[in-house]
Amino acid sequence: MLDNGTLQVVPLGGLGEIGKNMTAVRQRSGMMLVDAGMAFPDEEMPGIDLVLPDFTYLREHADELKGIVLTHGHEDHVGSLPYVLREFQVPVYATRLTLGLVRSKLQEFGIKNADLREVQAGQRISLASFGVEFVGVNHSIPDAVAVAIRTEAGLIVFSGDYKIDLTPIEGEPMDLARFAALGKEGVLAYFGDSTNSERPGYVPSEKVVGDTLNQVFEDAGGRIIVASFASHIHRIQQVIEAAKEHDRLVGVTGRSMIRNVQIARDLGYLDLPDNMMVDQRDVNKVPDDDIAVLTTGSQGEPMAGLSRIAAGTHRTIEVGSEDTVVISAHPIPGNERGVSRTINGLMKKGADVHYSPVSNVHVSGHAAQEEQKLVLSLLKPRYLVPVHGEFRHMRHHANTGVALGIPEENIFILENGGCLEFHGGEARRVKNVAAGMFLVDGGGLADTSTAVMRERQQLSEDGMFIVVARIDAQSGQLLGTPDVISRGFVAPQGANGLVEDSIGVVTTTLQRTGSRNITDWGALKNEIRRDLSSFLSNRTRKRPIILPLIVEV
Amino acid sequence: MLDNGTLQVVPLGGLGEIGKNMTAVRQRSGMMLVDAGMAFPDEEMPGIDLVLPDFTYLREHADELKGIVLTHGHEDHVGSLPYVLREFQVPVYATRLTLGLVRSKLQEFGIKNADLREVQAGQRISLASFGVEFVGVNHSIPDAVAVAIRTEAGLIVFSGDYKIDLTPIEGEPMDLARFAALGKEGVLAYFGDSTNSERPGYVPSEKVVGDTLNQVFEDAGGRIIVASFASHIHRIQQVIEAAKEHDRLVGVTGRSMIRNVQIARDLGYLDLPDNMMVDQRDVNKVPDDDIAVLTTGSQGEPMAGLSRIAAGTHRTIEVGSEDTVVISAHPIPGNERGVSRTINGLMKKGADVHYSPVSNVHVSGHAAQEEQKLVLSLLKPRYLVPVHGEFRHMRHHANTGVALGIPEENIFILENGGCLEFHGGEARRVKNVAAGMFLVDGGGLADTSTAVMRERQQLSEDGMFIVVARIDAQSGQLLGTPDVISRGFVAPQGANGLVEDSIGVVTTTLQRTGSRNITDWGALKNEIRRDLSSFLSNRTRKRPIILPLIVEV
Repeated sequence: MLDNGTLQVVPLGGLGEIGKNMTAVRQRSGMMLVDAGMAFPDEEMPGIDLVLPDFTYLREHADELKGIVLTHGHEDHVGSLPYVLREFQVPVYATRLTLGLVRSKLQEFGIKNADLREVQAGQRISLASFGVEFVGVNHSIPDAVAVAIRTEAGLIVFSGDYKIDLTPIEGEPMDLARFAALGKEGVLAYFGDSTNSERPGYVPSEKVVGDTLNQVFEDAGGRIIVASFASHIHRIQQVIEAAKEHDRLVGVTGRSMIRNVQIARDLGYLDLPDNMMVDQRDVNKVPDDDIAVLTTGSQGEPMAGLSRIAAGTHRTIEVGSEDTVVISAHPIPGNERGVSRTINGLMKKGADVHYSPVSNVHVSGHAAQEEQKLVLSLLKPRYLVPVHGEFRHMRHHANTGVALGIPEENIFILENGGCLEFHGGEARRVKNVAAGMFLVDGGGLADTSTAVMRERQQLSEDGMFIVVARIDAQSGQLLGTPDVISRGFVAPQGANGLVEDSIGVVTTTLQRTGSRNITDWGALKNEIRRDLSSFLSNRTRKRPIILPLIVEV
Repeated sequence: MLDNGTLQVVPLGGLGEIGKNMTAVRQRSGMMLVDAGMAFPDEEMPGIDLVLPDFTYLREHADELKGIVLTHGHEDHVGSLPYVLREFQVPVYATRLTLGLVRSKLQEFGIKNADLREVQAGQRISLASFGVEFVGVNHSIPDAVAVAIRTEAGLIVFSGDYKIDLTPIEGEPMDLARFAALGKEGVLAYFGDSTNSERPGYVPSEKVVGDTLNQVFEDAGGRIIVASFASHIHRIQQVIEAAKEHDRLVGVTGRSMIRNVQIARDLGYLDLPDNMMVDQRDVNKVPDDDIAVLTTGSQGEPMAGLSRIAAGTHRTIEVGSEDTVVISAHPIPGNERGVSRTINGLMKKGADVHYSPVSNVHVSGHAAQEEQKLVLSLLKPRYLVPVHGEFRHMRHHANTGVALGIPEENIFILENGGCLEFHGGEARRVKNVAAGMFLVDGGGLADTSTAVMRERQQLSEDGMFIVVARIDAQSGQLLGTPDVISRGFVAPQGANGLVEDSIGVVTTTLQRTGSRNITDWGALKNEIRRDLSSFLSNRTRKRPIILPLIVEV
């Protein structure tokens, strides 16, 4: 248990990476979480579905955890919530749209009776002995908030994901006045969004995308298809507005798009009149130039709407040379090739394709440098902790802090699990807590180890050789001829008869061990592995996984 | 054999992709190749080392092939040459630096006595009955040329990779006068570089990178490390100039960097005095602020110099908080994450890292739209065939052509193997020729099939289950208990005892088949596969490869 007046803040995810944001805030009287996000696997995690923060620290302090606050409804901030709530039954505080998205997610997971408590920007609540205030910010999803927390050690502020949009599509501009007031009150530490900190200047208002969309709709003849993130309600609203302006109905397709449009309409965040909306089954009944279709797949995800349309494998929608497609998003690093495949596919079918940065069809939802400067100027934090970003982004955010006069020693670039302790107005790093990642593989939760990931990579690159040998249990003598089977492996040209020669190698090995009467199958397998591996590496430069199987007879 | 006056042009690679550029030009009296490049594998080709064009068409016309001309020394234009020359012993024409790089490559492959013939920009040669003229262009490697070919059907021009640099570091600006003269003579068809056709405006001169480098060198305290493509001799020269200006020696590290610097110095393309050059073994003997180190790894390739330095695994070079690193390149699509990993690693060690686009340390080597317009205006081709690019790039190049007045029907966006026939000043598409890809896996050449690629992907995503069962050969009865071994597979939580239960499933299957006296091992394996697959899919939602092994006893 911590001393009175001591505060610990521990980011458990989202540092040194884009994704799985989750931070523990802990004082003597209890612990709370800011966000509970997930991440998507990278190319070094084949077969993995999603990645969660490590819950070890939460388990160690399970009785102290009093609640969770969410800044907004994106997966990288709420995606691990179902997994957290399965283990820890605590109240969850979030704004209306965020809760709407969370509710739908919990339902999918079959989690009932979660204690969800709606708050709104400007509201203050007590969470255990924390005083939590929600402050409105702009982002690429409505109802995003920053979180200011009054603790025993002082006032700390989490920006959540934010940008400053002075002409927002819906709702209010970011509450800069409140940021100024917090600054006046005195901010001990600021945990700020670093995603876009390499980018100079300001991020344009969401409004500018509307202008481009209107121009595209003005020029378009046939069907218009627009792909965007399903959670980007403001973007979706702008597509609806452009459709309205140009007398087109709006078809909604793609599982997550349909669900989010439904939620946002139900909660009043999206204005799409019933008589404008076309069910996905009826899209082909509307003349091409009377409809705009909203779909998913803006990241080139192989199974999503636009990717299927581009590949010609969509159940209902085809695209032709009269049609116009807008990819209203920017590829997340790692998705470039998938998005490019989509663009190429659509263009091959003759469609007129608009995409960023060739066309002005997207703006970022994350503050660029001048916005970061403004927030830092208003908050005047004593300590700056860049969060939400890879190291390069946090380092640039830190540089911006230094440029604004925050001493370098008051800026902490932490890694996941890095523990910052505040007491008497001072901050210091204390011992890191456990904070790895937890890979979810298949339906359930699986602590898929790095050893298995390495095994999978080796399997996929070099394949596998399986050797089956029948051995006399008594004497250790080889009986008959060993079998060699390979998977994911092809012999290069000039390496003809590789399998036959492999059998020869294994036979020689087993005759040698047999003559020494070796009946320790472990030792015997090691010899097979060594000899065959060296043979294959010489002949093919590949190092497949070798699995010797000894059948005792 | 073709009719008199008929010309066929067949791109065998480089269309709908970035890489493995190779085009066959064929008339009655013979066939020639323009370039013979390779490509790097994408994420759907695990374990593959490189990708070659399909040589089927060349083999079908082997006796017609009279020679190969190369536009420049990049791997995507010369990388498959060793494989081509192993099969087809024909003369190769290229400029001096290109030949220097090719010679070194052929040596590695143990290919002697290749018939290499040096040409220079401005020169004309006869190749069979083709009249081939080499025209100087600018690119991110010296000695690049376009190729104008006088054929029985008319004059055709291949741009190769090019940009227009009016203030080049070395050599001449692109020979626009010669392009104008060709245009006046009358160009039947132009095969133009499309790589950068999505980009408006002009690509800046290579010179601007020198200004940035000078500023970086001016500000740097400790050691300076610069990573760039090893073939970018002009970039390397500019690093040398900046070093000279700031009294630093130049260390050269990384296998390909050492080799290319050696070749370029020997041939007079690089001015690096002996007394400025530091052997890689001696880099640590020079005080940090007296040296700049050239290295590889600008694309985040895990085994290359800068990646190892960033990971802290380089044999000799460490980087610290006093040091400056310049990544003088832009990530090729697909390499973003690797490059980001390098940047993050270097910054974590405290280095000051300069990279594109945050810092102005790179310019492209490919013409942007205004340059493409200029070339099209000078050549005034009757037909435009965009090459070197994905479909999106070729489509944009075509749009630029249309904007300049080339009728859409005179623009051919082909795929690899698309065959264009010219006769009497007219062009028409004829039947496609075979033009897939040929994957090189391990040391040798292997026609690694898509089936194996799929197998590898499945292995990497879902892993493998191996079942070993001993069966009485006579009766088909199961003897003892089957063994189940998995690789690359981990049981999700809540699926405890999965291996034990799998053994149960297989035992039940084999008891059932045994009771029916089934001794057809194929049928028996199918039943094991079916039952176990359905069991595993239910319990884990994964579909590992299942390999049943029957041992007859």
